Amino acid sequence: MAGIAGTGQDPLRGGYSRPVYSSAEIDLRTWFIEQATRRQLSVEEDGNGALWAWWDLPTGIRTNAVVTGSHLDSVPGGGPFDGPLGVASALIAFDLMQAKNLARTRAMAILVFPEEEGSRFGVACLGSRLLTGAIDRNKALNLRDPDGNSFADIASSNGLDPRFIGPDRRLLGQIGVFVELHVEQGLGLADLDHPVAIGGSILGHGRWKLSMRGQGNHAGTTLMSDRKDPMVAAARSIAAVQQIARTRDNARATVGRLQPVPGGTNVIASRVDYWLDVRHPDDAVTAGVVQEIHESAQVIAAEEGCTLDFSQESLSPTVSFDAKLSGQLGLALPNTPVLDTGAGHDAGVLAGHVPSAMIFVRNPNGISHSPEEYVEDADAELGAAALADALASLLQ
Amino acid sequence: MAGIAGTGQDPLRGGYSRPVYSSAEIDLRTWFIEQATRRQLSVEEDGNGALWAWWDLPTGIRTNAVVTGSHLDSVPGGGPFDGPLGVASALIAFDLMQAKNLARTRAMAILVFPEEEGSRFGVACLGSRLLTGAIDRNKALNLRDPDGNSFADIASSNGLDPRFIGPDRRLLGQIGVFVELHVEQGLGLADLDHPVAIGGSILGHGRWKLSMRGQGNHAGTTLMSDRKDPMVAAARSIAAVQQIARTRDNARATVGRLQPVPGGTNVIASRVDYWLDVRHPDDAVTAGVVQEIHESAQVIAAEEGCTLDFSQESLSPTVSFDAKLSGQLGLALPNTPVLDTGAGHDAGVLAGHVPSAMIFVRNPNGISHSPEEYVEDADAELGAAALADALASLLQ
Repeated sequence: MAGIAGTGQDPLRGGYSRPVYSSAEIDLRTWFIEQATRRQLSVEEDGNGALWAWWDLPTGIRTNAVVTGSHLDSVPGGGPFDGPLGVASALIAFDLMQAKNLARTRAMAILVFPEEEGSRFGVACLGSRLLTGAIDRNKALNLRDPDGNSFADIASSNGLDPRFIGPDRRLLGQIGVFVELHVEQGLGLADLDHPVAIGGSILGHGRWKLSMRGQGNHAGTTLMSDRKDPMVAAARSIAAVQQIARTRDNARATVGRLQPVPGGTNVIASRVDYWLDVRHPDDAVTAGVVQEIHESAQVIAAEEGCTLDFSQESLSPTVSFDAKLSGQLGLALPNTPVLDTGAGHDAGVLAGHVPSAMIFVRNPNGISHSPEEYVEDADAELGAAALADALASLLQ
Repeated sequence: MAGIAGTGQDPLRGGYSRPVYSSAEIDLRTWFIEQATRRQLSVEEDGNGALWAWWDLPTGIRTNAVVTGSHLDSVPGGGPFDGPLGVASALIAFDLMQAKNLARTRAMAILVFPEEEGSRFGVACLGSRLLTGAIDRNKALNLRDPDGNSFADIASSNGLDPRFIGPDRRLLGQIGVFVELHVEQGLGLADLDHPVAIGGSILGHGRWKLSMRGQGNHAGTTLMSDRKDPMVAAARSIAAVQQIARTRDNARATVGRLQPVPGGTNVIASRVDYWLDVRHPDDAVTAGVVQEIHESAQVIAAEEGCTLDFSQESLSPTVSFDAKLSGQLGLALPNTPVLDTGAGHDAGVLAGHVPSAMIFVRNPNGISHSPEEYVEDADAELGAAALADALASLLQ
């Protein structure tokens, strides 16, 4: 990954900011195409902007292919490994397998998804959701980025034809198995003192948007008693989010993004938009937590003279990876622990359609979505080797 | 004001966004220069970017001048009248006085200040603070806008020489009196059923920046008990701001601007910056409220595993306008009520150096710093006529 170490560094937030179709993400795509081409892989972009680098069979048959990959986009101010580690490890794993001259009866490919983080258009795993039809194509085309651009317009200006954005059964049908390597985003492997794990399940998770509307006014001339201040209402609601999540074991609820409108120091806001992320292994608990947060925000809105809009942006149930495939990986990687994760991944979306699995690489401090995210070089090498062994075991 | 009705309209926030040296504010400056030149006024820009349109005496002597004016910049998503009404009314008042062919022994000028709102560089009344030396010039040169540009750089690229930014005793010494007309930003005149008031005092006010620092991390993988979430700490602190302000009669405390870093939906923020605006007629109460808010934020920060930076960005004591000047205005405008205001104005900064006064024009719904800010045409005409009468009474 030395070739991309500087791409998308964010001088304001620290870390890396590579939203989909930013110049940084496009630079990484260009880097990937160069790396794949150098390995004689045949690179194709699908109708949704995902890149497929094929290591074809002499026959050219791609059915039942062994596919690996991840993503190159990032959250704002994220770490260097979330996404790119899986893509770079796939390239290294292909090198290791090519060096061994393995007999193959299955085509292979590296698959790079766009907008995994949802940091530009709000829906995580947008590329895999489009491929599989997990998101309605018209809904996707009308998603807006923070500057008000639609996904359709941004995709168009990056060479996609909006008519071909949406599910692609033919491509999806070529995937025999999908294995995604990813940096772990918690302390599981650090606590177990192991470099690599096989994925067990992905916590159910979703995103909701809350808009608290009050009365914009002058901060100096409006008495406290005359105010309908949506910032106060949003603040009280965010404090309640923490309280509610704490009442359920294993629930996680987060507000990490908030925008006051208009956002002036001497202006009582007229509206505050904020986004809620909720996850729990039991989908019924997730729904219960969200309902309780919604109800508490409604009560607070009424108390502060505000009104609340509450809408779901995405929802993914808890995913258990394919037991047979995970079993095969367990045989290929003996003595490797199995770990669940609270983070969403494209592999979780694909899991509803094709046998999918994940490999996690140790994160010594457990921190991710932060400039402090870190992976030891030695662990990255062990991860790529494990991915190569796992893929090779599936080739026969 | 029909000629500028569309300038700086904000399609995202509603209302008008005209930060200093935006294309919208520059368009309004160009409009003002054209209007002033059409009236044979001699327009000069001072070293701080304020525009002076002089109606000179035949002698050319400018000492002890009668000066009126306001500002053309706006808060984000503000109303059309806050600032421009005072500038347009000054032009109309000059028309009314020129039509009367008044005998004059004093020069007159219309003065347009830059960055009155502080919506770009964070310090309200920056133009008048620079002119009077109320802000240190080096501090001002190093102020940064949200994109990280320094005031020195932005001023340079708009034709100012940073060496000449700062107090100007010669120019300040030419002002004999300063009278600013402004839309009222509360319901005082609406409640009194009067179109125009004379300003009594300006509430003391200040701005403070709070930075709550925690541990950025992944929203899905980080257990609630392992978090140091600065968004939760900031939210609890904002709820406390309201509670604390409500314990003191007449205190106003507002958080209208907040920025989480990095600001991703699936990211626990590493830092949340928010800005506090506090005002009270008694400067000691302002200080007490701010201290209580600071202490409560420190306690909350500690409870949430966060740390707090707290810094003052500006502080203006309560200003009572010049009694003799206000008395003269009262004679020129009989049966006109006197109103205090909670909003800061350049006239309040100048009041520490030259006799200053204000004229307020009725705001039927009391709303300002919002697209809903409104003035009836008939009231705007009465305001300009009152300004003309007030200025004329000072000319002898």
